[in-house]
Amino acid sequence: MLRDALVKAALDMLEQGEEPSLRAVARAAGVSAMAPYRHFADKAALLSAVAEQGFAALAVALVAADVDTDPRAALIGQGLAYIAFARARPALFRLMFASDFALTLGDDSGAFATLADRVASLGARDPQAATTLSWATVHGLAMLALDGRLPDLGEDGERRVVALLAGAL
Amino acid sequence: MLRDALVKAALDMLEQGEEPSLRAVARAAGVSAMAPYRHFADKAALLSAVAEQGFAALAVALVAADVDTDPRAALIGQGLAYIAFARARPALFRLMFASDFALTLGDDSGAFATLADRVASLGARDPQAATTLSWATVHGLAMLALDGRLPDLGEDGERRVVALLAGAL
Repeated sequence: MLRDALVKAALDMLEQGEEPSLRAVARAAGVSAMAPYRHFADKAALLSAVAEQGFAALAVALVAADVDTDPRAALIGQGLAYIAFARARPALFRLMFASDFALTLGDDSGAFATLADRVASLGARDPQAATTLSWATVHGLAMLALDGRLPDLGEDGERRVVALLAGAL
Repeated sequence: MLRDALVKAALDMLEQGEEPSLRAVARAAGVSAMAPYRHFADKAALLSAVAEQGFAALAVALVAADVDTDPRAALIGQGLAYIAFARARPALFRLMFASDFALTLGDDSGAFATLADRVASLGARDPQAATTLSWATVHGLAMLALDGRLPDLGEDGERRVVALLAGAL
């Protein structure tokens, strides 16, 4: 599928520190400069497709980390996995939130739903506030880490912060 | 003071959606294109000075909001003021964290200390984790709001989320 090849090429370029353009991904996929326009109206549409794949990969990472039988421990696992994802794929993570891809907290599928389901299992009195608090905390930790603003807390430090959050819910 | 005038010009340009360059701020301040180099080695140094002013303004906003005699209510006031600052001055807020200005959580003066002092007054068992959790949560809420990812919680919604955080400390 040409579309998949173009998104893959854009993701590779992004993660190698290059700015993906429709022209550059066409060259990388070995097709004409006009071919991408069959699938993407413009560069923003291409980047949205990359962001959508990023959120799908994040959802997989959160599900994979949600393994502890104790629900609070499972939530802590998800939170640490969120931060680890951002640290491992910083360019993709930044794009996911800067792109036009229309995910908002409250969407009932994908990465957000994985977190919301776990928070709901804790029986919080205000599930919307509890889910928003959980996402915002790990998102804030991730952004501060990427921007070099977190002191050296170590992995145990992040766990202490996320555990404190989990205790609040 | 030329330096102050240059920083002010850069801040004004930034908040009007323009990219501040040394050349452009020299023009705005009515000095020669070379004059800024007496104060700033390059554009990054100029932007760091703008970011430093932004953190000073944030510290003032946090102190001004820390008024309730109940310490948890005062912390909630600070948290909401942090998010309000980001919403009111999005370009400055983004620059503050993207710039080279070397603030990290744990610095013992300025905006971070204002929050750390209030968290310490709550008697948290792990003050470092509690302060990091507080900053990360409001930073995450602010970033998600600026990136259009928060559902419409309304002002009361933000208060519910920040209050849930405050209850955890």
